Amino acid sequence: VWQATFARVGEDWVFLAMLGIVMAIVSFMMDYGIAMCNKAQLWLYRDLASHQALQYLAWVSLPVCLILFSAGFVHILAPQAVGSGLPEIIALHKGSGIPEMKTILRGVVLKEYLTFKTLVAKVIGLTATLGSGLPLGKEGPFVHIASMVATLLSKGVTSFKGIYENESRNSEMLAAACAVGVACSFAAPIGGVLFSIEVTSVYFAVRNYWRGFFAAVCGAMMFRLLAVWFNDEETLTALFKTNFKVGYPFDPQELFVFALTGVVCGFLGAFYVWVHRQYVIFMRKNKKMKAFLQKSRLLYPLFVTIIYSSLSFPLGLGQFWATDLSNHRQVVELFSNITWTKKDHTVHEFQVVENWRTPWTGIFVSLLLYVTFTLFGNVVSSTLPVPSGIFIPVFKIGAAVGRIVGETMAYIFPNGLNYGGHNHIIIPGGYSIAGAAAMAGAVTHTISTSVIVFELTGQITHIIPVMVAVLIANGIAQLLQPSVYDSIIQIKK
Amino acid sequence: VWQATFARVGEDWVFLAMLGIVMAIVSFMMDYGIAMCNKAQLWLYRDLASHQALQYLAWVSLPVCLILFSAGFVHILAPQAVGSGLPEIIALHKGSGIPEMKTILRGVVLKEYLTFKTLVAKVIGLTATLGSGLPLGKEGPFVHIASMVATLLSKGVTSFKGIYENESRNSEMLAAACAVGVACSFAAPIGGVLFSIEVTSVYFAVRNYWRGFFAAVCGAMMFRLLAVWFNDEETLTALFKTNFKVGYPFDPQELFVFALTGVVCGFLGAFYVWVHRQYVIFMRKNKKMKAFLQKSRLLYPLFVTIIYSSLSFPLGLGQFWATDLSNHRQVVELFSNITWTKKDHTVHEFQVVENWRTPWTGIFVSLLLYVTFTLFGNVVSSTLPVPSGIFIPVFKIGAAVGRIVGETMAYIFPNGLNYGGHNHIIIPGGYSIAGAAAMAGAVTHTISTSVIVFELTGQITHIIPVMVAVLIANGIAQLLQPSVYDSIIQIKK
Repeated sequence: VWQATFARVGEDWVFLAMLGIVMAIVSFMMDYGIAMCNKAQLWLYRDLASHQALQYLAWVSLPVCLILFSAGFVHILAPQAVGSGLPEIIALHKGSGIPEMKTILRGVVLKEYLTFKTLVAKVIGLTATLGSGLPLGKEGPFVHIASMVATLLSKGVTSFKGIYENESRNSEMLAAACAVGVACSFAAPIGGVLFSIEVTSVYFAVRNYWRGFFAAVCGAMMFRLLAVWFNDEETLTALFKTNFKVGYPFDPQELFVFALTGVVCGFLGAFYVWVHRQYVIFMRKNKKMKAFLQKSRLLYPLFVTIIYSSLSFPLGLGQFWATDLSNHRQVVELFSNITWTKKDHTVHEFQVVENWRTPWTGIFVSLLLYVTFTLFGNVVSSTLPVPSGIFIPVFKIGAAVGRIVGETMAYIFPNGLNYGGHNHIIIPGGYSIAGAAAMAGAVTHTISTSVIVFELTGQITHIIPVMVAVLIANGIAQLLQPSVYDSIIQIKK
Repeated sequence: VWQATFARVGEDWVFLAMLGIVMAIVSFMMDYGIAMCNKAQLWLYRDLASHQALQYLAWVSLPVCLILFSAGFVHILAPQAVGSGLPEIIALHKGSGIPEMKTILRGVVLKEYLTFKTLVAKVIGLTATLGSGLPLGKEGPFVHIASMVATLLSKGVTSFKGIYENESRNSEMLAAACAVGVACSFAAPIGGVLFSIEVTSVYFAVRNYWRGFFAAVCGAMMFRLLAVWFNDEETLTALFKTNFKVGYPFDPQELFVFALTGVVCGFLGAFYVWVHRQYVIFMRKNKKMKAFLQKSRLLYPLFVTIIYSSLSFPLGLGQFWATDLSNHRQVVELFSNITWTKKDHTVHEFQVVENWRTPWTGIFVSLLLYVTFTLFGNVVSSTLPVPSGIFIPVFKIGAAVGRIVGETMAYIFPNGLNYGGHNHIIIPGGYSIAGAAAMAGAVTHTISTSVIVFELTGQITHIIPVMVAVLIANGIAQLLQPSVYDSIIQIKK
């Protein structure tokens, strides 16, 4: 018995490590592909600076091609790869005890959800989708991808076959896969484990805790090591490093303003879930729309992509909401330790702030437009028949909302608040972080977004205000609306 | 039904917030009392600098008085307050499903464990114990205190009476209390919640996740706000702030050395648990010892305290292991971003390093002696009939072990390792953090010590190496020994 147990534990370790490493490689390669597409669009746009019409054509045509390719490819290979996949995974987990759910979701739908074909369709389709620059994320699909990799790995490698045959072991494996999925998209192992527990479990067996952690750490480590080996980074650091003052991150009075940020994000998160559901239901119920969608599968994506790209064209409306920045850059600048409203900027600071204002409008207009367009753009484009997630767009919306609050504070109190005879300047980036965590938490009904945000930024100085904002946002959102995943599951039934 | 549910949820929030706030106040007051005692000892010692004999007398007599007072007070008022209390709480949680455990632990022993008398005995006894400077901690007892406060609060306030009557609600409440206990002793809300889940739960109901978080955040926020209001701190920050480089925390190759730190801490953690159990069993089995202990309850504490104080006398052996520093200062210096082995120190750096070397010996001798004396000192003094915990001493041992590894690395590679053509200096403090988390994780069989360490230091730059070290240390320790809590439960049976 001892030897059998030991062998099984040993195989377990190997399996979990392999899962983490494979996912890290997949994540890294996809990020590379996405970055290439984004760069190509910006490069075409900048290189054609003499011809505005050509610029526009280049700006629009690349996303259109990518989205059409993604939609077509996924449709032909495996239609199950459309959408996030995370709601289905959640239903699989939570429903595993309920027979009714089991037959509906596991028997009919989910059998096809974890095949090799779906994996290929999802990975390639997602890369193309995100390369297009539409406001979509990779987190949800990544959990789906990780679940597929785990399933295939356990089936494919003969020595793992034995261990994951019975159902409870199988669900243990899928739980670890969820953690790895989040860990590899954000390099956030702890947040990944917690998020996966919160989202997929009703009752959680604590003895499985270490599996998720082990796999997630392997994944996150490999993911960051790859960045080092391919010279993107000097060493293993956070994805969105911030550099806030460690000694005096915020005044005690600012806690109220952080709580207010939580309130705003809570309502906005509930609003997002509501709008998302209304839009999906509208698209289904409207008969003309339905007929149109079913007849010409590619017309709707074409239409949506052209409109979104036109609205985001940097010489047109796009200049008002920073569309000539990559996804990564947007988050870095929203989180940055720069007070946008202050008067004397260094050259570097000036360059950052210039992205968020125009000769005619200030930063607040840009931020508000950014929030609006990202929110509605995400709602609309999440209905496209392509693989897509919603976490990162929501996260960005929250970061912008937080930045608005923070800059307002910095604008009203340019010398900072007075506490105990000291004046300390307000750090708007801190609000941005709290906003991002609170908004993502409100939409997904999770608290672990706070941990993800700490791991993403590599700083934990704002722990108390971030936790306060996340808890308040969660409280409000949970009172008003179901989580976005439950909402999608309800619609799909 | 809706109104009843809402009222109950509302009461729940109020209850959890109150629990957090009360615990924060208790924790703050106790810390204040402990700091006073520690200061008094150092002040007496320094003020009598002209008479060495008097110095020695002062150094020894204060701890002896405090320990004797603690032992006597606790014995008279409530003998259940002796020890950590955490193992009993764990048994209460884990055993709640097993009838056998229930009768043994709940019926006979645990009934007395959650009374007001025990609370008073524990708070005052623990303050005196920790004030004595013996290598004991407050985390475990604090979980016990939080459980008592929660029980009394739910009994005392009439409007809460209704909600916590049935058993499942009761255990939900105690789970939240565990989280608050840890959160208030370390200002680590997330780590507190996770630690309490890992330690007390077999199956964890995810819907209770937010209760722990809410109560822990209230507690941690209040705990840090009190520090601000009483002018100890300028604003809400981490307890042991570190200031490592954010941009380049460690070389990729160093991951192997961090893993090695994990290996060392894993073995040392298992060794600690083994020694602890052997010592307790020896004290019980040995008939003469037993007779001696039962006859004269105060002689054994007297004896142990005199020996420990004599060994730690700063003019004698104490100078070799930094005993003239307070607990807090020791951790701050072990974690500090100072390379002790480097040649040119600033005045401030020099002052720190001077504490850890003597004219005759270098820092490595001091650190090794520190590890040895703290380990055995903790094992022996944890058998005294006073309230005491073991987490913080173990944590300090790990920090010292990590510092040894880090300083060795810095000594061998004074210019840092070369990676990709760049040389970056090694940060020994990073190893200290990893060691502390790994050692605490190995002894308690938990992974969440890594989160606690991030919250304690306010930095999360070393997330990957810390996680690697903690996972490896856990793996080794779990193979070799039970957790220290399970070990104590086994002995007590």
